[in-house]
Amino acid sequence: MPDRPFVSLTTDFGASYTAICAGVIYSITPSANVLVLSDEVTPYAVVEGAMLLRQALPYLPVGVHVGIVDPGVGTSRRPVAVVTGRGDVLVGPDNGLLPPAAEVLGGAVHAYELVEPAYRLPEVSTSFHGRDVFSPAAAHLAAGLDPAALGPRVAPADLLPFAPPPAARSGDRLTASVMYVDRFGSLVLGARREDLPAAEYGAPLEVAWTAPDGAPRSVRAPFAETFGAVPKGEPLLWVDSSGWLGFAVNQGSAADRYGLDAEAVLTIRPLPQE
Amino acid sequence: MPDRPFVSLTTDFGASYTAICAGVIYSITPSANVLVLSDEVTPYAVVEGAMLLRQALPYLPVGVHVGIVDPGVGTSRRPVAVVTGRGDVLVGPDNGLLPPAAEVLGGAVHAYELVEPAYRLPEVSTSFHGRDVFSPAAAHLAAGLDPAALGPRVAPADLLPFAPPPAARSGDRLTASVMYVDRFGSLVLGARREDLPAAEYGAPLEVAWTAPDGAPRSVRAPFAETFGAVPKGEPLLWVDSSGWLGFAVNQGSAADRYGLDAEAVLTIRPLPQE
Amino acid sequence: MPDRPFVSLTTDFGASYTAICAGVIYSITPSANVLVLSDEVTPYAVVEGAMLLRQALPYLPVGVHVGIVDPGVGTSRRPVAVVTGRGDVLVGPDNGLLPPAAEVLGGAVHAYELVEPAYRLPEVSTSFHGRDVFSPAAAHLAAGLDPAALGPRVAPADLLPFAPPPAARSGDRLTASVMYVDRFGSLVLGARREDLPAAEYGAPLEVAWTAPDGAPRSVRAPFAETFGAVPKGEPLLWVDSSGWLGFAVNQGSAADRYGLDAEAVLTIRPLPQE
Repeated sequence: MPDRPFVSLTTDFGASYTAICAGVIYSITPSANVLVLSDEVTPYAVVEGAMLLRQALPYLPVGVHVGIVDPGVGTSRRPVAVVTGRGDVLVGPDNGLLPPAAEVLGGAVHAYELVEPAYRLPEVSTSFHGRDVFSPAAAHLAAGLDPAALGPRVAPADLLPFAPPPAARSGDRLTASVMYVDRFGSLVLGARREDLPAAEYGAPLEVAWTAPDGAPRSVRAPFAETFGAVPKGEPLLWVDSSGWLGFAVNQGSAADRYGLDAEAVLTIRPLPQE
Repeated sequence: MPDRPFVSLTTDFGASYTAICAGVIYSITPSANVLVLSDEVTPYAVVEGAMLLRQALPYLPVGVHVGIVDPGVGTSRRPVAVVTGRGDVLVGPDNGLLPPAAEVLGGAVHAYELVEPAYRLPEVSTSFHGRDVFSPAAAHLAAGLDPAALGPRVAPADLLPFAPPPAARSGDRLTASVMYVDRFGSLVLGARREDLPAAEYGAPLEVAWTAPDGAPRSVRAPFAETFGAVPKGEPLLWVDSSGWLGFAVNQGSAADRYGLDAEAVLTIRPLPQE
Repeated sequence: MPDRPFVSLTTDFGASYTAICAGVIYSITPSANVLVLSDEVTPYAVVEGAMLLRQALPYLPVGVHVGIVDPGVGTSRRPVAVVTGRGDVLVGPDNGLLPPAAEVLGGAVHAYELVEPAYRLPEVSTSFHGRDVFSPAAAHLAAGLDPAALGPRVAPADLLPFAPPPAARSGDRLTASVMYVDRFGSLVLGARREDLPAAEYGAPLEVAWTAPDGAPRSVRAPFAETFGAVPKGEPLLWVDSSGWLGFAVNQGSAADRYGLDAEAVLTIRPLPQE
């Protein structure tokens, strides 16, 4: 074991409930180094949480990574630990949250259901499995527990897959849903650079959507390599650091400017050069 | 002393001022392991802070726990350190914030007023005792200081008691104030499960309140063991992991749905089974 | 090197992107002790970030302090490391963010441009230099790297200076811009105590501004040593713990009460004693 086994936490719990999870981990494994990757995933937003884990975990040390966005807590969804090719163990609900991260960490090589009472808190509540089930398992794993001790083996192929909103091409139009809105109000779409009809930097695009009152809305925005390629306050399409397409305003918020949120669907098409 | 003495911080300061407190602690005691339990208690909400400490600290390692929700900073309220039966030291203002946590950690066995200048920063401001008084005391305690060195003894019975809004029963009606609204928009009430007239899971209840415009409002909601026991978007009453009654919407926000906040008062009564 | 070299992070990235930076640092230097000073600087608010660093860093251990509020990411602004008289290394963009902190840490004694590829991630994105450039540099510095290895020397005098909004005196009137709004809704102004015409505690002042609809607005507020010197809900002018003037409401939010934000300009003048 390393001197300070690394554990990350990603939840939709907010600061204090996530810190309680960290406290449980430190109580069991005082030498752990616990990093909160996020405690502010949008509540119940499994897709957003999955995207964050997929994007972030490759930059974190090999370790135990707890992900909890768990609309099904208290129902029969399985709590699982997933061992990756890189040597991490991902801990969380079996609801599609973990597979994208496992995929970029060398794939899911083993998985186990978390059923062994010795690695749960003595009392397990119905609503806070983060504290009572996932964090104790993570702490014991960080202390060197063999994941196979946690419970019965689950075939990685039987884990519930990630189900993002799909992008669609029709002629030169790309229709994509917003996967999440980042802190700056930029919209990250369920589409990759290669989905974009016109992929040359500087090319003018039309971004269109339907306003809440049903009216069609659209804006002209270039495909840009950097935010700084457009003037302050101007819109752009760009490729985020994970390869997803995004719609943003340089030094501003696309969400606020255009009244868009995580429910929005955008249609993008090339415009003729002026 | 443990290798990495544990210190938690719970404040209404926001991230940066709370991190300054952590920085002061690390400056004095570099080996400390500082966990921010919360930096986002609602400003000045002593009841909310007290409830959080009471709920969370039993899950954290034995250590030094700093709690600061301090509307009286700069006045004559006492800064104190409270030694618990479990072996923790709670550090914060003497304003009702600490006693509920002390009670669940084996009781307050000793208390001391923080007056010794050697365990404060050299300059003490009027508005930021978190940085200048509480954090240095916590750091020295984490490094092994005898709490009695901090200042004169205070009888635990003389600490200001916690004063939550009381619940009231009248016939089959329970009237309870909201203590706090959690991150999901669920309302945690100043009432315990045993206060509820009909305590059987599945029993239908009426939850009633007065809207801001003075109109009476009510909704039918079952008493449910888990959020998942009602359909998505439906209301329920449940018992949170600390034993308090709460009013929530499964995978939604009761606060948003019903226009309720931490000022609300709810009246709950059993309905006949349909 | 200390056992646990200290690194702080201050960004406008939000929790998860900032935690990715911490993850990069732990991946390179597992013994580091990383503290997030703030992940919630107002996006692109260089003045606010600079003020926070200046106010906070003197209370943090000597170490490596990463500051990233970087509207120019992806353009030609330089990434730099600034060695202070106290022995810290400040890492961030050369855009005015770091100099005020360097000044209070013994001055900028050396500076270097971050160009050496060995101390960046293998792939450098255009939009996330926090992860790809600044965090790796900080991690290597924390592990003991000589800052001169990072790239060519920059004369401290050639670093872009901090440019806060200036305060102005005209007769007995002080006009000052809001530098930032703190978590409690208090407004911290670009003016010092010595700029205030009437500096005696208890003296009545008029605080005036122009409302969004163009109407002149004003309120009477005393210059007060502590929030508690005025009744709950009453306004005051005070001096914050860094020596800046502020406009606040005791146990309330001046921003909410008076409809003021970080764009506001206040004019303050003494009133006759009643």
